[in-house]
Amino acid sequence: MTVEGLPMAVPAANLPARVRIHEVGARDGLQNEKSTVPTEVKAEFVRRLAQAGLTTIEATSFVHPKWVPQLADAEQLFPLVAGLEGVHLPVLVPNDRGLDRALALGARRVAVFASATESFAKANLNRTLDESLAVFEPVVRRAKDEGLHVRGYVSMCFGDPWEGPVPVHQVVRVCRALRDIGCDELSLGDTIGVATPGHVLELLSALNEEGVPTNVLGVHFHDTYGQALANTYAALQHGVTTVDASAGGLGGCPYAKSATGNLATEDLVWMLQGLGIDTGVDLGRLVATSAWMAERLGRPSPSRTVRALSHKEQ
Amino acid sequence: MTVEGLPMAVPAANLPARVRIHEVGARDGLQNEKSTVPTEVKAEFVRRLAQAGLTTIEATSFVHPKWVPQLADAEQLFPLVAGLEGVHLPVLVPNDRGLDRALALGARRVAVFASATESFAKANLNRTLDESLAVFEPVVRRAKDEGLHVRGYVSMCFGDPWEGPVPVHQVVRVCRALRDIGCDELSLGDTIGVATPGHVLELLSALNEEGVPTNVLGVHFHDTYGQALANTYAALQHGVTTVDASAGGLGGCPYAKSATGNLATEDLVWMLQGLGIDTGVDLGRLVATSAWMAERLGRPSPSRTVRALSHKEQ
Repeated sequence: MTVEGLPMAVPAANLPARVRIHEVGARDGLQNEKSTVPTEVKAEFVRRLAQAGLTTIEATSFVHPKWVPQLADAEQLFPLVAGLEGVHLPVLVPNDRGLDRALALGARRVAVFASATESFAKANLNRTLDESLAVFEPVVRRAKDEGLHVRGYVSMCFGDPWEGPVPVHQVVRVCRALRDIGCDELSLGDTIGVATPGHVLELLSALNEEGVPTNVLGVHFHDTYGQALANTYAALQHGVTTVDASAGGLGGCPYAKSATGNLATEDLVWMLQGLGIDTGVDLGRLVATSAWMAERLGRPSPSRTVRALSHKEQ
Repeated sequence: MTVEGLPMAVPAANLPARVRIHEVGARDGLQNEKSTVPTEVKAEFVRRLAQAGLTTIEATSFVHPKWVPQLADAEQLFPLVAGLEGVHLPVLVPNDRGLDRALALGARRVAVFASATESFAKANLNRTLDESLAVFEPVVRRAKDEGLHVRGYVSMCFGDPWEGPVPVHQVVRVCRALRDIGCDELSLGDTIGVATPGHVLELLSALNEEGVPTNVLGVHFHDTYGQALANTYAALQHGVTTVDASAGGLGGCPYAKSATGNLATEDLVWMLQGLGIDTGVDLGRLVATSAWMAERLGRPSPSRTVRALSHKEQ
């Protein structure tokens, strides 16, 4: 769908022809909702996201229900969506036990969630940075032995609510460590939304120089200060082709103050479509999905595109 | 002010060292408020914006009160702020009568408001495009004879709610005409917020090719689809150094559906500060000003930065 022929597709120089959107709304989004969403609604959400053309949809997390009660139904949810054709359904696994559960259900892609800072490792995982990497190592090794694709999330890559600015070399160290233990892909998270384009480019260049190529990197921006899409544009110019986003802008992070607002998938798709970059996503169906989910959650979507287009349809 | 040392200043290549923010909140913002703001509150708003370091603050509009009742107090407001040192206070003048009123009060900078499309010229000005340009010609000529600086707004540069995508050559024609009649500066408006970076770059390049240099161009983006800051970043890369923004994200356009949300000055300043680009603006004072104004208006600021930082202070 385009809206009255808009956005007009006008390519810009030196951008990728195609971007893969890693959709995190069903996991990163819903895990931060106050109310628990019924399993069947989650499954329907994932199905509609797939029908809108998203091909990588992070489905849930096999974390202990005590920590994330919103996703305590992972065992029930995963089989409901596992049959979706042509769709990757990565799941988060915090440890060996989580990997057991994911493997038992036939998951083919998993993700581990690391931090670039000691403070957040402590707050989120209750471990030092090195301890948390040590926990991930056997998990990632076993996942690789089982033939799974493994993503490593690196949170707090730009700023940390306790430590302030995060030095680039510290992020590089964690990224290198995750690559060394076998992660196929890394997602660079701006968990508190403070990054700006020059900082993004500096980190990407530093990673390249230290042997982490752009084609294993995804970016994961939060819109806390409205910077997510500008940062994404800068990352695309650097050659990044994997972008995390959350349908309707759902989510945030309960352990980090001010960490409201993942980049909304719709705002991202509007820009990519305007740049003539292929995503495979049908913007109209995606907006309808997020409007539907916003009704289920009983509050308006924080995505500007969803608001503008839902308003238009009234 | 920086917030816990954030954003970290990390310059990127090929960007200007300094950007002039053309602050439109007091005019473009307040003219779209449902309730009329008391004159003294407006004056205090302008004073606080100046104290926050903004040096170009569009103060009001000398349009007929019948059309914009929110700014009917232009005669009372202007003298209250005219003495602010080191601050330019441009005012909008729709016609000869408006220019008379502005000149009588000693305004030194004026702006005319043109459209890139016939539909919007008709809807907003009730004239054809050529008729509206003919009306502006003697106004601009007289303003120049009086030694004033004249800005020409060009609205609907990227999309129009009635016509859809707006051809670049049509925008170029209007810009050329406004330059030919004497406008010192042009502001390229994405009134309905549909632009994406490639479209922005295409328009800027086309203008350059047709003899309109970048140093007379400002950009004026709306955040309807969340694209404003990414578009601004693209424009900066092209060499644009004048960016319109509205403190707290106030405003929109009552004559254009879905035209909610000017780019918030705070979100812009966050990015520019992060890029190490000098604006002269104190982000903390600016956020405090917008938070204060949001209280006067009785609703939260749509600026993400204002929301995040006001929340932090609680």
